[in-house]
Amino acid sequence: MRRFGITMGDPCGIGPEICIKALIQRPEYLNRCVIYGSASVLRHYAGKLDYDTEISVIDSAGSAKTNVLNVVDPNSVSVNDIQIGKLSSLGGECAFQYVVNAIREALDEKISSVVTAPLNKEALRMAGHNYAGHTEIFSDYTKGENYAMLLWSDKLKAIHASTHISLLKACKVTKQREIDVIRLAHQTLCKVGYSNPHIAVAGLNPHAGENGLFGDEELKEIIPAIEACRAEGIRVSGPIPPDTVFLRAVKGEFDIVVAQYHDQGHIPLKLLAFDNGVNITVGLNVVRTSVDHGTAFDIAGTLAAKPDSLICAIEVGEKL
Amino acid sequence: MRRFGITMGDPCGIGPEICIKALIQRPEYLNRCVIYGSASVLRHYAGKLDYDTEISVIDSAGSAKTNVLNVVDPNSVSVNDIQIGKLSSLGGECAFQYVVNAIREALDEKISSVVTAPLNKEALRMAGHNYAGHTEIFSDYTKGENYAMLLWSDKLKAIHASTHISLLKACKVTKQREIDVIRLAHQTLCKVGYSNPHIAVAGLNPHAGENGLFGDEELKEIIPAIEACRAEGIRVSGPIPPDTVFLRAVKGEFDIVVAQYHDQGHIPLKLLAFDNGVNITVGLNVVRTSVDHGTAFDIAGTLAAKPDSLICAIEVGEKL
Repeated sequence: MRRFGITMGDPCGIGPEICIKALIQRPEYLNRCVIYGSASVLRHYAGKLDYDTEISVIDSAGSAKTNVLNVVDPNSVSVNDIQIGKLSSLGGECAFQYVVNAIREALDEKISSVVTAPLNKEALRMAGHNYAGHTEIFSDYTKGENYAMLLWSDKLKAIHASTHISLLKACKVTKQREIDVIRLAHQTLCKVGYSNPHIAVAGLNPHAGENGLFGDEELKEIIPAIEACRAEGIRVSGPIPPDTVFLRAVKGEFDIVVAQYHDQGHIPLKLLAFDNGVNITVGLNVVRTSVDHGTAFDIAGTLAAKPDSLICAIEVGEKL
Repeated sequence: MRRFGITMGDPCGIGPEICIKALIQRPEYLNRCVIYGSASVLRHYAGKLDYDTEISVIDSAGSAKTNVLNVVDPNSVSVNDIQIGKLSSLGGECAFQYVVNAIREALDEKISSVVTAPLNKEALRMAGHNYAGHTEIFSDYTKGENYAMLLWSDKLKAIHASTHISLLKACKVTKQREIDVIRLAHQTLCKVGYSNPHIAVAGLNPHAGENGLFGDEELKEIIPAIEACRAEGIRVSGPIPPDTVFLRAVKGEFDIVVAQYHDQGHIPLKLLAFDNGVNITVGLNVVRTSVDHGTAFDIAGTLAAKPDSLICAIEVGEKL
């Protein structure tokens, strides 16, 4: 069985710490994973956390060894080269290299999927890589177009029709994109074992537009998309007023909500699941799951970071 | 001391039931309130709920009597004229008359404030009154322009820069409106006893626009408004990413959040406070608080409705 990859994220953030903590809490991952990151920085945290497994540098996941922590370390950055807790272009460059190497190995079928620890967009930009985040790097390097961001927690799941664009642009919903996202929701939940998942589509406007009274995007784009998906046999309801659909999903009425824009889905998810949310990019030819938090430079190096979200991301990644 | 008014809402919904239940749970309200509603329908529910206080019809709050339930009943509709649990133009007309009469008495200083039980917009429209809700009726009848909807719960409070308009229109935020809403938030919390409330302003765009990367409304309108309010001495922070500001407020960092559009504030509030949320219209010359739920025709008449939100609305109304 192929191993899964974990990208360590920005070496100056909490990424390396939560990688080691996840392996301490879940020793069974050791022989199932490869980390794309800095062996030196990982050894630094292993020392601080009394984790005495050997950390071994390999060229590719294909040459992973048993009972050691295998690390693909593309630029061999040392812990002495970085300042923990500080924004830097070196940190951004490292994080970028770890992700790009993991994507390449996933496309080459050396690893089964990629779990990403946090990078910092500002550091990425300082290093000359202008991406809004992981999702956009994955889309670019896997040549994917029809993908979506899915936030996953035990209590609530939401897939997003749009993410890192202005709200004004996000208002321009289209029937085709709605259909694509409803299908992605259906396919993803089927893959993890739901037999006939119930999908709710949130409206774009207050009260889902109240029959065109406050916006006609529901009438013109969203409802025709729902009808088209129903005709394909997908179990889909909506459009449902955005301010009640999430509570109804939490109470069990729906398995997943199609959110029309970034904050429509992110506000309820972050409110309910700040510690154990997982961010998944679906619809690409590489399965990618991620922690749902940032580099947390303010607590990096203090050993206060929790690996819960990373462990959840690994678990969900394995299911997919 | 002047009494406060309660409008009974649509007689076919749960409004009359929760009025009687609130008086059973809080008998001290009897000599402090006047109900604008149908004495016949209230007597019907009083009988079912074994509430044996006399229900007395009066012309105006000015002639309220002690130790009876005083009801201003503008159109004397009988319980036999209506169908409980059914949408009807008569129900909409009644609800409208109760509200308009209460507003008139508040403007005449016969009552101190108005607490509203739910009406149904569709019923309102069937009766020929095209209002998006209570807020718009109050704005129209009190000739108010500079008002805002504030959702209130113990855990979280949010005031809205816009409400019942399409999301596309809501994206057109302006510096002046932002200033007005920040001031209303400050004034309202000062009125209920906060000495120096901390106000958070949410961004409009994902990540509050990330310095103009996903929309420039923060840079052009919201930040200048925040700076202007700070110069007036108001304690205000932001713009803060919409997907984290509500959690930070719940954890105690902020006393209230300025939400940029209806669902930005309604999604977290409804998720956290479905039973005891209060809807307040601030900035009008009549104080108005309201339950945060609808007519619930599906459970009307079954005695399953909870008066919690109405009791909260009364308590907050008295503080204001």
